[in-house]
Amino acid sequence: MSLLLYDNPVSGNAYKVRLLLAHLQLPYERVEVSVTDRTNRQELFAGKNPSLRIPVLRLEDGTHLGESNAILWYLAEGTRFLAEGRLERARLLQWMFFEQYDHEPNIAVARYLLHYAPDAGQHAEIVAARQQGGRRALAAMERHLKQHCYFVDERFTIADIALYAYTHVADEAGIGLGDYPSVGNWLRRVAAEPGHAALLG
Amino acid sequence: MSLLLYDNPVSGNAYKVRLLLAHLQLPYERVEVSVTDRTNRQELFAGKNPSLRIPVLRLEDGTHLGESNAILWYLAEGTRFLAEGRLERARLLQWMFFEQYDHEPNIAVARYLLHYAPDAGQHAEIVAARQQGGRRALAAMERHLKQHCYFVDERFTIADIALYAYTHVADEAGIGLGDYPSVGNWLRRVAAEPGHAALLG
Repeated sequence: MSLLLYDNPVSGNAYKVRLLLAHLQLPYERVEVSVTDRTNRQELFAGKNPSLRIPVLRLEDGTHLGESNAILWYLAEGTRFLAEGRLERARLLQWMFFEQYDHEPNIAVARYLLHYAPDAGQHAEIVAARQQGGRRALAAMERHLKQHCYFVDERFTIADIALYAYTHVADEAGIGLGDYPSVGNWLRRVAAEPGHAALLG
Repeated sequence: MSLLLYDNPVSGNAYKVRLLLAHLQLPYERVEVSVTDRTNRQELFAGKNPSLRIPVLRLEDGTHLGESNAILWYLAEGTRFLAEGRLERARLLQWMFFEQYDHEPNIAVARYLLHYAPDAGQHAEIVAARQQGGRRALAAMERHLKQHCYFVDERFTIADIALYAYTHVADEAGIGLGDYPSVGNWLRRVAAEPGHAALLG
C-alpha cells in the first residue's frame, strides 16, 4: 500500500512531512483536509489519530500515524535525517518537544488567527500574546544558532525540519526576523539543502 | 558525575522524570526550582535548557537535557519502558507529542491557575477554556483505553508515565474523571505497577 498523507497546503505541520518526504524522495498520495471547517474530523480521523488533527500518514501496512514530529521520526529512522547516539537522539527530541510546546502554539496560532481563521483579524489580544511567546521561542533559537549551524550534531536533521516549518513563515504571524540574524542564516541554510521543497511547491 | 534533577515537588512534568527514575531504581540528586518566581530562570538555565523550564536533568557527562518527554526517552533507552520496533516507537512518540500539545497545556495550566499561580483563582475564563480542552484530551484517551490496557504495545511504557503525570491530578484542574471510566482503570493500573512512586512521595 502506498503512503497516504492527510494534508493541507498551508499547514506547517503537514509541510514538515512533505519536506522530509521530498528529501527522502519517497512517493506518496495526498488527501486534502480543511483547516477551517473541522466538522468532519471525528468521522475522518476516528481510529486514525487521537488528536483529530492533520497531518496523519497512512503507512505501508495500512495503519495510521498522527503527530507531525512522530511521523518525522518514523520516516527518518535509518536515514541521515535522524541523529545517531543516545544523547543526540534525546537532544533532537528536546528541540522537537520545544517546537510543539513553545514555538508552534505561538507562531502557528498567531499566523492562523491573522490569515486563515474564518474570523481572521478579530483576535488582536490573543494574537499579541502569541506573538510575544513566539518571540521568546525565536530568542531561544537565536541563542543556540549563534554558536551552531544546525540544531543537533552540526548537520541537517528532522529537528531542523520541525523548526523550519513555522519559523520561515513567521512574517505571516506578524513577527519580523530582524532581531534574530542567526535564525535568518539558518533558514537560508535549510532552504539551500539539496532536495528542499517549498511550502507551496 | 551523579544525575542531578532540577525539580519541583508539584510539577507534573518533573514528576514524570522522578517516576521513571524510581522504576529504574537510579539514584539522583535534586535542586528545587520555584514554579511561581521565575526571575532567576535565565541565570539558572542559560546553556542548559532553551525553554528555561523544569525539569532539566544534568547527565553523567555533565551536559544538561531539557523537556520532560525527551528526558524520559533518554533514560528509557535500552530498558523495558521504551517500545521496540519502528512503528511502536513512533506510536509512543505520537502519544507523548499529544500529551505536550493537547493534554498538558490544558490540564496542567488549569491546575496551575486554580491552585499554584501567585494570583490563583482569578482566571475563570481562561480556566474554563483549558478545562474544555482537557476534557477533549481525556475523551481521546478514553476512546483508546476502552480497547487497550496501556497506550502502546499493551504494556507499561514512558507513554503511560507521560500521560499519568497530569491525568492523575485532573481533579486539581477542576476536571472530574467520572465520564472517563477506562481512564480511571488505567490510572489504578499504573499506580499498581511495582516500583511506583507518588507525586508527593
